[in-house]
Amino acid sequence: MTEFTPNGLVSLLTDFGWQDDYVGQMHAALLAVNPGLRIIDLCHAVLPGDIDSAAFLLKHDARHLPAGTVHVAVVDPGVGSERAILAARLSGCVYLAPDNGLLDPLLRKAETCEVRLLNNRELFAPEISNSFHGRDIFCPTAAKVAGGTPFEELGPVVYTWKSGDSLEPIREEEQLKGKVYWVDRFGNLITNLPAGEVEGLTIRIGRRRISPARFIAEGNSSDPVWIVGSKGTVEIIVNGGSAAKMLGIGVGHEVNACSEEG
Amino acid sequence: MTEFTPNGLVSLLTDFGWQDDYVGQMHAALLAVNPGLRIIDLCHAVLPGDIDSAAFLLKHDARHLPAGTVHVAVVDPGVGSERAILAARLSGCVYLAPDNGLLDPLLRKAETCEVRLLNNRELFAPEISNSFHGRDIFCPTAAKVAGGTPFEELGPVVYTWKSGDSLEPIREEEQLKGKVYWVDRFGNLITNLPAGEVEGLTIRIGRRRISPARFIAEGNSSDPVWIVGSKGTVEIIVNGGSAAKMLGIGVGHEVNACSEEG
Amino acid sequence: MTEFTPNGLVSLLTDFGWQDDYVGQMHAALLAVNPGLRIIDLCHAVLPGDIDSAAFLLKHDARHLPAGTVHVAVVDPGVGSERAILAARLSGCVYLAPDNGLLDPLLRKAETCEVRLLNNRELFAPEISNSFHGRDIFCPTAAKVAGGTPFEELGPVVYTWKSGDSLEPIREEEQLKGKVYWVDRFGNLITNLPAGEVEGLTIRIGRRRISPARFIAEGNSSDPVWIVGSKGTVEIIVNGGSAAKMLGIGVGHEVNACSEEG
Repeated sequence: MTEFTPNGLVSLLTDFGWQDDYVGQMHAALLAVNPGLRIIDLCHAVLPGDIDSAAFLLKHDARHLPAGTVHVAVVDPGVGSERAILAARLSGCVYLAPDNGLLDPLLRKAETCEVRLLNNRELFAPEISNSFHGRDIFCPTAAKVAGGTPFEELGPVVYTWKSGDSLEPIREEEQLKGKVYWVDRFGNLITNLPAGEVEGLTIRIGRRRISPARFIAEGNSSDPVWIVGSKGTVEIIVNGGSAAKMLGIGVGHEVNACSEEG
Repeated sequence: MTEFTPNGLVSLLTDFGWQDDYVGQMHAALLAVNPGLRIIDLCHAVLPGDIDSAAFLLKHDARHLPAGTVHVAVVDPGVGSERAILAARLSGCVYLAPDNGLLDPLLRKAETCEVRLLNNRELFAPEISNSFHGRDIFCPTAAKVAGGTPFEELGPVVYTWKSGDSLEPIREEEQLKGKVYWVDRFGNLITNLPAGEVEGLTIRIGRRRISPARFIAEGNSSDPVWIVGSKGTVEIIVNGGSAAKMLGIGVGHEVNACSEEG
Repeated sequence: MTEFTPNGLVSLLTDFGWQDDYVGQMHAALLAVNPGLRIIDLCHAVLPGDIDSAAFLLKHDARHLPAGTVHVAVVDPGVGSERAILAARLSGCVYLAPDNGLLDPLLRKAETCEVRLLNNRELFAPEISNSFHGRDIFCPTAAKVAGGTPFEELGPVVYTWKSGDSLEPIREEEQLKGKVYWVDRFGNLITNLPAGEVEGLTIRIGRRRISPARFIAEGNSSDPVWIVGSKGTVEIIVNGGSAAKMLGIGVGHEVNACSEEG
């Protein structure tokens, strides 16, 4: 489905953090154009420049929003350079993001999608800085698309874009090789191992075997266990503690699902 | 008053923090059901699993919101286990929270209230994770209640629930024994000693006597003083500094109000 | 232009941080009065009591919001004391802030403005704490002004107020002496040197010369460069790193623009 009928919702996903005025300026840029919008701050605490983590969140979170939503994802170390900005229409939503791989996992898996190069300056702010396209390009455009500006006006259709992390585990005969994509406030280690593919397999971090549990409180405070997390993937947790601290690992660390003989 | 007429406001109080996508997903879950809602993030920085602090904030903050508000409080270490979820109607508002003591102080003090076991799965998300009921149960339900779903449809009436911290100081003959329930960004120590009950008494932390001041700027930068804080309780502050750091104490530390002879 | 027609937007700028319930209570206070308002959290992470940084953000951010917005700025170490609260009408907007210099740079540069002493208690909350006027005075008043209460009702006109940091660099014959006013999440050093005034000049921190770049990705990871930042001022950055850490400097540090002979 590549049709799009705006529902007035705009989601934001960035690495701008909460300690500056960047998120506030994005809200201002949206509401200055269209005060009736509803804004959802999906996450602003992506590690600076961490495109893969942002793609991971976007993949898992965007699907909880209804068709008609405009998703803005700005993790953009190339801001101000020649890097392009993509606008994609898929699953009834519009996505705006720099062309740096952030949208690639979504686009690759889409049954059908239309991708355009966002280059229609009439949609942007009158003055465009070289370091904050979130405020000057992404949000003014998102507000207009959410308000009814046709997707076709954003720019010309393109058929190629920068590839990015697939976000998929590597599927080998005896095992699934995944990794940690997010460490949350509680120290839970969120992996890309789909819960539906690890039945009967053993979860391992290096040589260490991680036991399964049905929910957090079934674990104890001295051993990590894994549960099916809220993203539908293997999540390693410690009941009342931090798995990240106890295991001393973080984003990018390998987590595997192996057949017991493996 | 146990009547409830929704006003379109939903308040959120959690220990999910701002560094992940959990709050964003809750907003998404609310607005996906009912895009017209107004959401108030009362606080998301409750220490992980700290039910008492959350109850303390809820008690003091919820009363500033008008009748008709739906309050969602999720500090929920038992998520996914057999623990129940409560829905309470009191003071013209509806409260949703896990049955872990979080609502107990409000319910105990309510002149009249109706408490139900939230178990009507038709109100929940189609898929329910074992670790994020905030997104899958609390918010979809809150959005529906805020949109007019009758309170009676949430589940059966219950007459008992888990008890929790009373949040009250211990009233002895010669003194009021209270404690610190919150340490804020400024290092202010917020206690549960009601300002109205400490007139003529001396505030002490251990043997140390804390002098009173009328407002922050009346203190100096080298001595803690106490003021009547914004929750109507004794608050220990240092003008231009952190009382928590200067005194080396935090949440749970005892603070007493004693008659001078005491 | 000192006319004001409310557009339903209220912006908030404070040093309350995100770790407490203070911002949530401000939202509650606004929406309790007027549930139709749209609230923009410009920034809540101003360093505690740092009036100059708040003034710097307000000066640069408020202009991105349309005429009709009510701006609330609360960095207020004197809360509860005799310090006054100002209400100013300029550029089609209304500003509320403590009289501690926060509004001074805006007022000084305004071609025309009307300033009033906010003292009409009928607009405030029924109970006023001595430590949280953001909740008890600023927000109830802002909600009413945003809802149509005439500016004239706020209090009497005043013609003097506390002066504050001019936020301007010192203009000498051979150089412009500026400083760092904000360090962002990325470690970028945001100065008050207007990009339009440094053409042909050399940017220096002490004896160290900082080379210019057009955008962040043009820099490298081992040397700071300066770009025209998103506030239109000189911003010192390290591509993929933190200029603040690499240079070991922060807010208040001097940054100069010198003619090469200077």
